[in-house]
Amino acid sequence: MAQNVEEFLSVAVDAAKKAGELIRNGFYQTKHVEHKSQVDLVTETDKACEDLIFNHLKQHFPSHKLTDEPTWIVDPLDGTTNFVHGFPFVCVSIGLTLGKVPTVGVVYNPIIDELFTGIEGKGAFLNGKPIKVSSQSELVKSLLATGAGTKRDKLTVDTCTNKINSLLFKVRSLRMSGSCALNLCGIACGRLDLFYELGYGGPWDVAGGALIVKEAGGVLFDASGADFDITSQRIAASNPLLKDAFIEALQQSK
Amino acid sequence: MAQNVEEFLSVAVDAAKKAGELIRNGFYQTKHVEHKSQVDLVTETDKACEDLIFNHLKQHFPSHKLTDEPTWIVDPLDGTTNFVHGFPFVCVSIGLTLGKVPTVGVVYNPIIDELFTGIEGKGAFLNGKPIKVSSQSELVKSLLATGAGTKRDKLTVDTCTNKINSLLFKVRSLRMSGSCALNLCGIACGRLDLFYELGYGGPWDVAGGALIVKEAGGVLFDASGADFDITSQRIAASNPLLKDAFIEALQQSK
Repeated sequence: MAQNVEEFLSVAVDAAKKAGELIRNGFYQTKHVEHKSQVDLVTETDKACEDLIFNHLKQHFPSHKLTDEPTWIVDPLDGTTNFVHGFPFVCVSIGLTLGKVPTVGVVYNPIIDELFTGIEGKGAFLNGKPIKVSSQSELVKSLLATGAGTKRDKLTVDTCTNKINSLLFKVRSLRMSGSCALNLCGIACGRLDLFYELGYGGPWDVAGGALIVKEAGGVLFDASGADFDITSQRIAASNPLLKDAFIEALQQSK
Repeated sequence: MAQNVEEFLSVAVDAAKKAGELIRNGFYQTKHVEHKSQVDLVTETDKACEDLIFNHLKQHFPSHKLTDEPTWIVDPLDGTTNFVHGFPFVCVSIGLTLGKVPTVGVVYNPIIDELFTGIEGKGAFLNGKPIKVSSQSELVKSLLATGAGTKRDKLTVDTCTNKINSLLFKVRSLRMSGSCALNLCGIACGRLDLFYELGYGGPWDVAGGALIVKEAGGVLFDASGADFDITSQRIAASNPLLKDAFIEALQQSK
């Protein structure tokens, strides 16, 4: 491939920052609109970001397909509930797969202006500075993140809170911020030690962040201990030191 | 009193911003130190903020006592666990009571550079712009925040997760960000619709934020429905429209 991976990253960063500007503009408007309009605003912002990112990528890489290799996997606005409410954990997530290998990851929070990037084999960065996962090796000193998802049937909610109950006895504390992609980036830069989510939206929520976690020295796996499968809607992440103990704790929390 | 309340606010904002600089400096160092040093760093930053704020207040208002009226109630670093881990929800909280009436509130997040302020009877502000609570009137469309506290005995953890389980069926979603003062400010500016916490640290966690909630049009109460008592370590907050339904939901979640 004539074009290099750094160029892919550069174009993805441009797309994320331009989409981030749309999100930032919409974010500060949400306090002044009624609910009906909020929904419309989300739809508009989401669609506008999607159009902007896809057009930007297509313009720069007309030969790339969006559903085949090279494959761009994009969540134009992750943290939709946060966006509606004005809670400042929202982001653009962009991942690029070459030959089925995740190669470029970009996650941009336009409200806090934090840009997480990674290139396969070349490390992970926050606003251009190298990041790595935490060096924590004890669950009891670890900060755990998870998400409640969007389903509210009894089985889903009971499973969610039973796991939280069991895990709260074993970790230092729990954070729920409402963005799967930003939770992965939290693992990558060591703000969070442990993250799992069951039943998130789809591969677009994790494609960018998963590469960034790996490039920051982290590990991705299924909460059951099986290998991470990007199509399964189940993800867990930590540093390598915590992986076994985390899986054991997750299994005990069934 | 010769000095006016605006001057009290101005001095409190200066103190919060100077302390915020200490927190910001320490915050970005935490990734490079070992656990033992992290604890020392927190102690040092916390103590340095406390000294700075108290000295600043005493210098400007030598006649004010710190334990009598006028009373400054200060949390030099709220969100200590977040500070240790580098999770960007940390703040300085300063409240001033005159004749037992909360009169000035300042909550400053130095990482995101968000300054929440309020003066009794004169409104609440985020970085100088007026803020108000959300206009949401339905639980099912509301974003709820709470905290897991720091106790990990079985009764505390079971109570915490039983409440979360019951409430998750009734609200849109749940956020746990790890700072009581910032959760109150989240209510004040409408990012969050509902907040409760049982067993937080003490009055210093809520003195600044509680005034800001009131001045933003919000209401404070005990999770049982009783009046809010700043010494009880129990707090709930929302807009007035949601109060009765929130208390009912909290009571059903025992």
